[in-house]
Amino acid sequence: MKEKLFVVKIGGALIDDDELLNQFLEQFSEIKEKKILVHGGGKLATTLADKLGIEQKLVNGRRITDKDTLDIVAMVYAGGINKNIVAKLQQKKCKAIGFSGADANLIKAKKRKNAEIDFGFVGDVEEKSVNRKLINKLLKLSLTPVFSAITHDKKGNLLNTNADTIASVIAQSLSSKYEVELLYCFDKEGVLGDVDNPKSVIKTVSEEEFSILKEEGKLHKGILPKLENALGAVKNNVNKVFLIKETQLKNHIENHHAGTEICL
Amino acid sequence: MKEKLFVVKIGGALIDDDELLNQFLEQFSEIKEKKILVHGGGKLATTLADKLGIEQKLVNGRRITDKDTLDIVAMVYAGGINKNIVAKLQQKKCKAIGFSGADANLIKAKKRKNAEIDFGFVGDVEEKSVNRKLINKLLKLSLTPVFSAITHDKKGNLLNTNADTIASVIAQSLSSKYEVELLYCFDKEGVLGDVDNPKSVIKTVSEEEFSILKEEGKLHKGILPKLENALGAVKNNVNKVFLIKETQLKNHIENHHAGTEICL
Repeated sequence: MKEKLFVVKIGGALIDDDELLNQFLEQFSEIKEKKILVHGGGKLATTLADKLGIEQKLVNGRRITDKDTLDIVAMVYAGGINKNIVAKLQQKKCKAIGFSGADANLIKAKKRKNAEIDFGFVGDVEEKSVNRKLINKLLKLSLTPVFSAITHDKKGNLLNTNADTIASVIAQSLSSKYEVELLYCFDKEGVLGDVDNPKSVIKTVSEEEFSILKEEGKLHKGILPKLENALGAVKNNVNKVFLIKETQLKNHIENHHAGTEICL
Repeated sequence: MKEKLFVVKIGGALIDDDELLNQFLEQFSEIKEKKILVHGGGKLATTLADKLGIEQKLVNGRRITDKDTLDIVAMVYAGGINKNIVAKLQQKKCKAIGFSGADANLIKAKKRKNAEIDFGFVGDVEEKSVNRKLINKLLKLSLTPVFSAITHDKKGNLLNTNADTIASVIAQSLSSKYEVELLYCFDKEGVLGDVDNPKSVIKTVSEEEFSILKEEGKLHKGILPKLENALGAVKNNVNKVFLIKETQLKNHIENHHAGTEICL
């Protein structure tokens, strides 16, 4: 039987709330099995860009990562946020080690090419982008990798990458070695059948059910990329994939029933 | 016979000059032996603090790292600078992996205590601060660790630490396993006998000669901490210690004669 591995993704709202983040990291550090944390950005990068007078560039309504913006997100995500999370986990006896994808070439991305829009320094990743062999060696040293959503192109450029996708491809990549459970932690109890009713959590969402929910326009904003990445993971041999509320991590792991399970 | 290991320190002026940094990293990546890079800060943190209206705090003429300043230096050193150096080394086929001292508890510092001045989030390190065992494991995986001068106290706090000292204690710590050569790279050809004559490089400086140079006030500004850390390394079993010009790295390694050697 394969060993268990949790790949846990957290997002911006949690990172912006010191107390909530601390509570979450406490629960995360108590996971006894092997584990990897992937974190998104939060508001700090935008706040900093505003203060520095760096305008957010939009082309056809799509956000562009120009060089100034890249410099900001690399500092904030791979430096400020990542190292603070690592220091807090170390305090809680979790042997955290923080990374960008450039470190040891752990995640090599392709700079996004689009005929209509130049997205700038944005990187796309897939399962084979991940340096599974080295991550596995680090896990075997009892370390807990903590990934920021900054990757590189092996041509000397850092790239801004979607954190949900990074979590998904890491989970996919390690599924040949581990029984992987991928947990998208966010501020809702799970996927809601009725966005105005926090108790309307759907217990399982299959690919077909996802298509229907999407067509009906019933999903709350921002959950689409999470569900797409979650489905991508399920399709590529990740054992279990859930969307859960951040405060429910411990409960979910101990009782196996919080949130929404994504399945085929 | 022990295997050779180079510990190379670079500073701010080099980091601020893209072209010079790139040339240096080219030379560094060509070192065939095992190697570790330690980098300082540069002007970016100060520029950023200025733009954000964060005043530099001084008490009795000594610089203080308050929380706002710590947040800036952690972002800039461990994020922006560290990850850009790593990405550039990866481009040059060097298997670089970037760290702060918090990562995997690689360097645990003590928050500086001083009866007269509260220096804020400043950490002091010594030989035993270094997680030699894990650094050795990473070196054995053919990785090249790249350290920023940010450490932690294992109580959840990041700490601003002197990069010259970090290079010295890493070199000391690994001397039991490796034949370590510590190279302080800077913008002079070495220690100058006459600060106004760039050709007046002193070939070797012993502890006694250092005391004399210091008393005579002959040393150029900013070299004192480098020399003190260099002497600390020599006294603690580091095999060779040199101060060399950044552009001379390759020449020094291939021909063994650039710069000033520090000896007992």
